[in-house]
Amino acid sequence: VPADDVTTTTTTTPTTLAELPTPLLVLDLRALDRNIDAMAQVRPAAALRPHVKAFKSTAMARHVRDRAGHRSFCCATLREMEGMVAAGLDEDLLLANETLDRERLARLVRRSGGRVTVAIDSPETIAAASGTGAEVLIDVDVGLPRCGCRPEDAGRLAELARSRGLIVRGVMGYEGHTVGDPDRERRREAVERSMEALRLAHDAVGGGIASAGGTGTYDLHDWADEVQAGSYLLMDTHYALLDLPFVQAVTVEATVTSVSPRRGWAVVDAGLKAFGMDHGNPTVEGWEVFFCSDEHTTLLADPEGALPAVGDRLRMAPAHIDPTVAYHEQFVVARNDEILETWPVDLRGW
Amino acid sequence: VPADDVTTTTTTTPTTLAELPTPLLVLDLRALDRNIDAMAQVRPAAALRPHVKAFKSTAMARHVRDRAGHRSFCCATLREMEGMVAAGLDEDLLLANETLDRERLARLVRRSGGRVTVAIDSPETIAAASGTGAEVLIDVDVGLPRCGCRPEDAGRLAELARSRGLIVRGVMGYEGHTVGDPDRERRREAVERSMEALRLAHDAVGGGIASAGGTGTYDLHDWADEVQAGSYLLMDTHYALLDLPFVQAVTVEATVTSVSPRRGWAVVDAGLKAFGMDHGNPTVEGWEVFFCSDEHTTLLADPEGALPAVGDRLRMAPAHIDPTVAYHEQFVVARNDEILETWPVDLRGW
Repeated sequence: VPADDVTTTTTTTPTTLAELPTPLLVLDLRALDRNIDAMAQVRPAAALRPHVKAFKSTAMARHVRDRAGHRSFCCATLREMEGMVAAGLDEDLLLANETLDRERLARLVRRSGGRVTVAIDSPETIAAASGTGAEVLIDVDVGLPRCGCRPEDAGRLAELARSRGLIVRGVMGYEGHTVGDPDRERRREAVERSMEALRLAHDAVGGGIASAGGTGTYDLHDWADEVQAGSYLLMDTHYALLDLPFVQAVTVEATVTSVSPRRGWAVVDAGLKAFGMDHGNPTVEGWEVFFCSDEHTTLLADPEGALPAVGDRLRMAPAHIDPTVAYHEQFVVARNDEILETWPVDLRGW
Repeated sequence: VPADDVTTTTTTTPTTLAELPTPLLVLDLRALDRNIDAMAQVRPAAALRPHVKAFKSTAMARHVRDRAGHRSFCCATLREMEGMVAAGLDEDLLLANETLDRERLARLVRRSGGRVTVAIDSPETIAAASGTGAEVLIDVDVGLPRCGCRPEDAGRLAELARSRGLIVRGVMGYEGHTVGDPDRERRREAVERSMEALRLAHDAVGGGIASAGGTGTYDLHDWADEVQAGSYLLMDTHYALLDLPFVQAVTVEATVTSVSPRRGWAVVDAGLKAFGMDHGNPTVEGWEVFFCSDEHTTLLADPEGALPAVGDRLRMAPAHIDPTVAYHEQFVVARNDEILETWPVDLRGW
């Protein structure tokens, strides 16, 4: 019996969260739908290209498409692209990232009935895309020290790409250095500066698409054609620091396995392998998180607070949603404590 | 076609790392074997109970058993226990953690041909274990603010466990608050204090086993019967700060996807979803790691250093091995750049 099968052998289908072992990635469907609707009001249909990297689930991508009508998606990895193609969610897929893997890109295009587009920012990435059937966007550095060519080089790269037979659909530029700034006016100004750079590049490149943005800047774009946002769907305590209309839709449910009334702490069975930790510890309402170990978190009671009992379940809010989801096999989609569905996190890995 | 299948469709079996897509979890077999041997010299056979949580792979557990003769293992999760039983690596398995899941524990014992032991530290965890066929160790708080009863309560808990029909094999206590102290003498003194507490508990509890320790204290135990260590096998930059005879055996191989000579940085395709980040950024020899995004790391060249080229491959050293491994599907076992085997990380999740 492979290990993966052991835990799913149950005689009856669980109907409440309490019947499932913890840690559990719990997705509040009402909160998710509220986030989908709030975004679609500002950026309907093709004005948003939801970013699959935030949730890595084709079932969830389908739900987003069906509810809001966004039909074009972007991905950060070839694995995500391959899964979206296999699931038929490939009307207009963008790999918003550079790749050198010519063979996988070509196979992806062959298998897809839709449009496959890839970001390029160098002669090497142009060479990897050419002849694969993929179309391209010129990725432009608009201030985040990561991928993307200088704005003044974009036209030259587009020319080179076209000379290699590639269809250049336009430009993309991610202003990731500003999406986390809690001051909305500063965010707006930074977006404007970034979009000046992207516009300069777009003028030189041509094509119908200027793609930009993220959850923190989704409503600060008046020029870009589409915004690439994913975190808005699930949110986390880091993004919650901004003045956004989105609510946290994912928590990790954990079980209290040990309580020490005399020492004033309790221990739950979800630790740093259940949470992306780069933005810090998860939080638990009514408790101070003392520290996380691999498979434990120690919680401190406030002086007047009652301690939980061994066996109690608590909900923990992740500090960073994307790397949290990547540790889990599935979302348990719930309304309060009732299980509605499970959505596999089927796009993990590379 | 499920997403997981797409990338494994190759016409020929890859023989070198360069043929596989990145990021890749590369395991240097010579370094691993050196670590296995160095540990077995000090703690041979049953004097070590290798901790499966560090590597989450039954193939690797089997390699460790066959090379060093350690036949008893410990785990942090029921999933790890279930996988070890399914793989037949269950001669003497310890869940070195508390669980309330009576049903899974009972199923585990039914499926195992060996001994299944579980840590308990409360009446509730005793109730969960009793009647399952599992034996128990009394988990004692020896200074780490996490699970474990107070030393003075251990005898009473053992009595309660025996009155519920459980076989009490002894005690365990993990001095996790000291394993990372870079000063060996301070570590030694802290271990002594912790073991005084555990000895007190053991005197009251009875049973043949006192289980303790970890990689940072493996050779500082002169009283405990067995040491629970796992990180020594693969190591990481955090443990490398200690004066241990173990070497780093795992790196993440990444591809340079974007280079900016004018701005002095290069970007690789392994980011914070390929590394446990709780101990900080990964490191890359010859480079300064600027920051990690979900699927990228930006590296800064030193002023005189040459930049790599787009398409080059680099090796990145994780800061914390356990949560790094938990993001990956497999170890690629290699000697230099030659692929020897792949070992699935088959014990992930819960």
